[in-house]
Amino acid sequence: MPSPDESVHPTATGLAKQTVDRHQRDEDLILWSGWFCPFNQRIWMALEERKIAYQYHEVNPYKKEKHFLNLNPLGLVPTLEIKSTDGQSKALYESDVLVEYLEDLYPESNEHPSIFPKDTYEKSWVRLNVQHITKQIIPAYFKLQQFQDPSDQDLAREELYKGLRTLTERVKGPYFAGEQFTAVDLSIAPFVRRFYNLAEFRGLDESKVGDMWLSYREKLMNRESLKNTSSEDKYYHEILERYLKNEAQSEVAKATRGGQNLP
Amino acid sequence: MPSPDESVHPTATGLAKQTVDRHQRDEDLILWSGWFCPFNQRIWMALEERKIAYQYHEVNPYKKEKHFLNLNPLGLVPTLEIKSTDGQSKALYESDVLVEYLEDLYPESNEHPSIFPKDTYEKSWVRLNVQHITKQIIPAYFKLQQFQDPSDQDLAREELYKGLRTLTERVKGPYFAGEQFTAVDLSIAPFVRRFYNLAEFRGLDESKVGDMWLSYREKLMNRESLKNTSSEDKYYHEILERYLKNEAQSEVAKATRGGQNLP
Repeated sequence: MPSPDESVHPTATGLAKQTVDRHQRDEDLILWSGWFCPFNQRIWMALEERKIAYQYHEVNPYKKEKHFLNLNPLGLVPTLEIKSTDGQSKALYESDVLVEYLEDLYPESNEHPSIFPKDTYEKSWVRLNVQHITKQIIPAYFKLQQFQDPSDQDLAREELYKGLRTLTERVKGPYFAGEQFTAVDLSIAPFVRRFYNLAEFRGLDESKVGDMWLSYREKLMNRESLKNTSSEDKYYHEILERYLKNEAQSEVAKATRGGQNLP
Repeated sequence: MPSPDESVHPTATGLAKQTVDRHQRDEDLILWSGWFCPFNQRIWMALEERKIAYQYHEVNPYKKEKHFLNLNPLGLVPTLEIKSTDGQSKALYESDVLVEYLEDLYPESNEHPSIFPKDTYEKSWVRLNVQHITKQIIPAYFKLQQFQDPSDQDLAREELYKGLRTLTERVKGPYFAGEQFTAVDLSIAPFVRRFYNLAEFRGLDESKVGDMWLSYREKLMNRESLKNTSSEDKYYHEILERYLKNEAQSEVAKATRGGQNLP
């Protein structure tokens, strides 16, 4: 019997589809992408924010191409293929690593605005808060989504509020680091985009995080790079429903189910 | 009743003690450190490797000073205090963030050799493998140490072998990235230093990882920066014994016990 994930909608929709269509030309950087994956959306947003040329390539995570598995034996999206002049390809993965790679490959310029502050301390403070999101917020998000027992959900919801409150206290406004849109903003934004589902089915009430959070999340939701890499709600819903029922078969879903560190 | 951790030996011993003694002078960077903590040892090694001036300040994690908690409300070591010209202090924490911070603060020079490759791709490959250590190797290490059920220990041991084998396949030799000692090496070395304890009490047999691992681990163990930041075995043993009995009260111990992501 096919796993329920195998019927996942195969391509991006809505504004994300338009962005995909604009990035079909051959380029030296190829984003091997999953339209539905919030981790994947981080690096996709980074490419858009930084105006870096890339070719978009959709991966069906349940029918992975051989070339993709050669690039990344773990078979995880996002994977960035880097073509070199000798015709060989290299690859990198892990969304945080990819964001840093783009920063090293294209240092800040007029053409390629940076998503890290210039100041050395502030840059590290951004990195530290990306880790806060990874370690405190994202695991709570997945637990709230996947846990079936109401008291487990209550604990996960409180954990999520707590992580978001800590982040909110550090937001300078309008974005995390002030006027500049940084790696913190694009690390959290794809998850905020999916909160509507937890609000509907898991009692998530973002007003409990506080007013400052509501104004910050509004800025994130209106960011062009988030909107232009987002598909239509009904297609996210098909995927997210499997997490809500604890039937999803992604590596993140399995790790959350088994109480493991996220991959 | 005092928690069993409160009787932890208060200071570094052996070669680490000599290094502490050499770093008591006022400096603009102050390492708020725990001599026993392997995460802490990473940034301590980075400071030593990169020949950066720092002042060493031991934290008793069960009697934290007010100034330390002001610097890092989470109360975790390592914390780096950064004094500025106006007499104010800032702080950063998270060992990986601190390693990157030092890299930005002191770009490679003759005085301050870098622990990242110059090549953009190779630098990202180092970062990716630091994440491999964090996500795949370290959780298995703590589980093997703390789990009491023999079949859980068997699973954790296999998980640890698997993570180490993946890393070993990528070692260019003599160090991870070749001749240069990099952030990958100092991320794993403090844990390798403590493996003797798992060999004695948890059946860890490093020869099962393979011959390449044995020669790599030998290079790590002989690195001056590891030796000069290491205390005497018997004092590590006092601490590690609490993990073996699952009685340790550190944040990492609690997270491992509760099946949570490591802090």
